[in-house]
Amino acid sequence: MNIKGLQERIIQKKSPVVVGLDPRLERIPRAYKKGKTISEALFAFNKDIIDGIFDSAPAVKLQIAFYEKYGLEGLKAYVESKKYAKSKDLFVIGDIKRGDIGSTSKAYSNGHLGHVAYGDKIIDDFEVDNVTVNPYLGEDCIKEFIEDIKIYDKSIFVLVKTSNPSSKQIQDISKDGQTIYERVAEMVSGMNSEFNGAYGPIGAVVGATYPEELIALRKQMPKAYFLVPGYGAQGGKAKDVVRAFNEDGLGALVNSSRGIIFNYETLGSSVKEGARAAVKEMNEAINDALAKVNKEYWR
Amino acid sequence: MNIKGLQERIIQKKSPVVVGLDPRLERIPRAYKKGKTISEALFAFNKDIIDGIFDSAPAVKLQIAFYEKYGLEGLKAYVESKKYAKSKDLFVIGDIKRGDIGSTSKAYSNGHLGHVAYGDKIIDDFEVDNVTVNPYLGEDCIKEFIEDIKIYDKSIFVLVKTSNPSSKQIQDISKDGQTIYERVAEMVSGMNSEFNGAYGPIGAVVGATYPEELIALRKQMPKAYFLVPGYGAQGGKAKDVVRAFNEDGLGALVNSSRGIIFNYETLGSSVKEGARAAVKEMNEAINDALAKVNKEYWR
Repeated sequence: MNIKGLQERIIQKKSPVVVGLDPRLERIPRAYKKGKTISEALFAFNKDIIDGIFDSAPAVKLQIAFYEKYGLEGLKAYVESKKYAKSKDLFVIGDIKRGDIGSTSKAYSNGHLGHVAYGDKIIDDFEVDNVTVNPYLGEDCIKEFIEDIKIYDKSIFVLVKTSNPSSKQIQDISKDGQTIYERVAEMVSGMNSEFNGAYGPIGAVVGATYPEELIALRKQMPKAYFLVPGYGAQGGKAKDVVRAFNEDGLGALVNSSRGIIFNYETLGSSVKEGARAAVKEMNEAINDALAKVNKEYWR
Repeated sequence: MNIKGLQERIIQKKSPVVVGLDPRLERIPRAYKKGKTISEALFAFNKDIIDGIFDSAPAVKLQIAFYEKYGLEGLKAYVESKKYAKSKDLFVIGDIKRGDIGSTSKAYSNGHLGHVAYGDKIIDDFEVDNVTVNPYLGEDCIKEFIEDIKIYDKSIFVLVKTSNPSSKQIQDISKDGQTIYERVAEMVSGMNSEFNGAYGPIGAVVGATYPEELIALRKQMPKAYFLVPGYGAQGGKAKDVVRAFNEDGLGALVNSSRGIIFNYETLGSSVKEGARAAVKEMNEAINDALAKVNKEYWR
């Protein structure tokens, strides 16, 4: 699914929410784990989350670290979860934050945005609609992903300004009035300019925890979809995240992980109902905030 | 194995070479692939390389991208290859270039430097001696790895100045006379200061393709082991890489991947003999160059 497909689902479901499938075994109810392998437990949990949210959210994001942590069994759950999410017509983001020298980035890109053939088999275990990319190695790295974006009609989110407290140590360093993250934003903007349409396939990760920066970055990258982490557990609020949206009310996906998938703990409900309720609340909060600034994308 | 264990093996084998196990299916001889799964083919190839080099090189580095590219089957070969390398008493580096916000970096670190328990099972599929870390997200990210370095007696290499052409776009941006890569070097140096001994567990990746920068960075991070990619196929020469070594002739590992593992193509030999010959040649070239600048670590 490309960015256009994502946008159609945002409008149809009236939701710019992406659900972070970041399971932590220690917070998954015992019933999912009893007598089960790690991969069975993680997948069963994710399946209930997906069943709870697929009709009210357009996208899911899988943070691959929470699967890699559990080795091959963990990654098997990553593969099964993203397949199940695809079967429910969701836009699937692999939050992999990869980035390496050219020939190595190509291997990541082939594996995560595309697929490879071996004899008469097609290997597409990790193929998703979109992945996150780390820009520390410069354009060489991102260009390899762009080749596959064109081949497979996919998209990426480049890390511009991340949501964590120490992101400023490197990203906020400024030379001649331009910070590192603004320079990365300039790269993103330049790369999108060769694609037609209101939105290009090169998106940007910009944390909800830095609302001031959101305003400037929104202006600098008008054609980029924003992936906005940091809502909820990390402190970002609806009134902050509206700044990530363009005047058309589009151009942003707001992520929440722990606030959605572990909401059952707060509600005392089932995992599925907890997730469903959290997405409903988040949709309402963001849509209300968007309406207040005249950015109603659903009109 | 910790940095001290690595150093003992460097001196004993008279080799600062790390062999990059970056297999590319299209360059692996047909005999390895015929009737075999991807994981069997990749592992059989790596096993021959390891058998060829384990007595003449102290370390191997697995670029995980070349395994991820082939999905779960590919990663199974990663797991088997690093286990086999461990059984041959090699120092094993996972070239994963991970880096994320704190809680996520912790998951990567737990999985790649340590292990996790599930019921009565220990999951250590990805556990290696050392991993590479991307610093774009700042100290939050690196600190999680340092916790596990202490728990498991391991080490990391932080990306400081990478070997690729576009590394300068972000890494060379300079403010008040200090580049981004120098700022990362300052972080590395600061983090090593809390560890005793001549060398600390926080190393630095510095490309052989930037020899001028090597000199300054060597001075700035006296306690850091350097992982030096870019030798051979990427253009770095023995006379360049000696700059990565301290006056004691230690403190650096020089990586070559394609030049070693595909040397059989040039020689027309077996995979094993090709790798063995390439390491021998590289050991001699580097040791000769070190002797010329009075950095004979083997004395």
